[in-house]
Amino acid sequence: MKARGLFDEVRGTTRRESTLQQALAAGAIDRGFPDPREAAEGADFVVVATSVSLIPDLALAAARVAADGAVITDVGSVKGFIASRLAGKMPQGRHFVGSHPLAGSEKRGVVNASADLLAGATCIVTLPEQGDPRAVEKVSSFWQALGMKVFTMPPEEHDAILAAVSHLPHLLAASLIDAIPDSALPFGASGLRDTTRVAAGDARLWCEIVEANSERILEAFDGLEGSLTDLKGHILRRDWDGLERYLREAAEKRHRRYGEMQGED
Amino acid sequence: MKARGLFDEVRGTTRRESTLQQALAAGAIDRGFPDPREAAEGADFVVVATSVSLIPDLALAAARVAADGAVITDVGSVKGFIASRLAGKMPQGRHFVGSHPLAGSEKRGVVNASADLLAGATCIVTLPEQGDPRAVEKVSSFWQALGMKVFTMPPEEHDAILAAVSHLPHLLAASLIDAIPDSALPFGASGLRDTTRVAAGDARLWCEIVEANSERILEAFDGLEGSLTDLKGHILRRDWDGLERYLREAAEKRHRRYGEMQGED
Repeated sequence: MKARGLFDEVRGTTRRESTLQQALAAGAIDRGFPDPREAAEGADFVVVATSVSLIPDLALAAARVAADGAVITDVGSVKGFIASRLAGKMPQGRHFVGSHPLAGSEKRGVVNASADLLAGATCIVTLPEQGDPRAVEKVSSFWQALGMKVFTMPPEEHDAILAAVSHLPHLLAASLIDAIPDSALPFGASGLRDTTRVAAGDARLWCEIVEANSERILEAFDGLEGSLTDLKGHILRRDWDGLERYLREAAEKRHRRYGEMQGED
Repeated sequence: MKARGLFDEVRGTTRRESTLQQALAAGAIDRGFPDPREAAEGADFVVVATSVSLIPDLALAAARVAADGAVITDVGSVKGFIASRLAGKMPQGRHFVGSHPLAGSEKRGVVNASADLLAGATCIVTLPEQGDPRAVEKVSSFWQALGMKVFTMPPEEHDAILAAVSHLPHLLAASLIDAIPDSALPFGASGLRDTTRVAAGDARLWCEIVEANSERILEAFDGLEGSLTDLKGHILRRDWDGLERYLREAAEKRHRRYGEMQGED
């Protein structure tokens, strides 16, 4: 935001004073506050970036002190949970619109901040049921100004999609690691490394995501179990033509999303 | 081999004349032959690098024309199948020892050849039941000369390990892609990209690997299903402490193999 000059003033808030100092030194914020209510006081636009379970209360606290007409958004990985917690609770004249920028880096902290981290990536903006279209427009424009491609949809649709493309793959990577005998682990090569990379994520954060989206995740599990049953059926029946077709179709489907073949092991 | 001067003469064989010309031009071989028997004639050391189903016959054909005392090895991803096909069939004074270098690149072909592709990676050398220890020593030394760390074990142990760390993860990646609704696929980010990268591999080659190692793969499937049942149980019981412990242990186990945390999504 600072690099693109989107606002007259950018304020930051976080519990640790040293992090605020780093953010000031990096030029990421103009002013820093240890108290989120002070940071949000009189603000026109608020982005709540913390773990999913804390977002509803913080968004509400910010809304109570923000300027009239203020728009509050977040960057949480689950949207239905947050929308339901905030339903009917926003103060008059303040608007909450959920966001989920689908980008990130394994490098954390202010010292690794990058003005171009989000450029070219996708952001999902979730429409509140009786929301203000101007608030949705404001949030969409914000992400677009950071270079993102924005899609809008209901929170429930977001959660079903993310269960399939992010939450379930994460759990599956953890299960795959869990299932590997200790004696076999040293022989894992680059294929296993990449297949399980997401399993290295923060267990506490991921646990919160699963708790907040457990129904959709269990639905996605059902879908995966159906696919695994099909796959295993080909092997049990020694139906190698069927297996080859299954693997080829999966490779082609992946290709449609991620482009040219990069498979190896 | 050429870059390290391991042999007086390196011969190559492949069906396509143009590939032989490329290999000669790249300095990867000294002489090229379209007929594998001509290439192997009088050879001391033969490496069969083709798909698993073709390896036994080619290894045998090479052994029949190779020098007395010759050692034949391969680079196939399944070892028990090859060992059983060759059991009792090697001509007198010729020795087959299986190899599986656990390294590779998604860039194929002679034009992408790299003298250092294998350096630092692991190679599994499989001990034939009544094999010649000198042949095993010769094969191990060969991979070590290319910079690899060599482990020796029975073919069946190799196949159980690879089922767990490579074959099953590959099938799982394909199932994960298969299970994702088409409408959700565009929202897959870098996490899904990496989790499913191996699913972009050649369907025909992978089908051969699964066919040749189907029993071990089905055993690995059983192990994974147990892990998935545990994981799902935590979610169904809303046992978030149990889930967090499961995810943390998986992250720590992965960390033991692949080093520092790199998870994000």
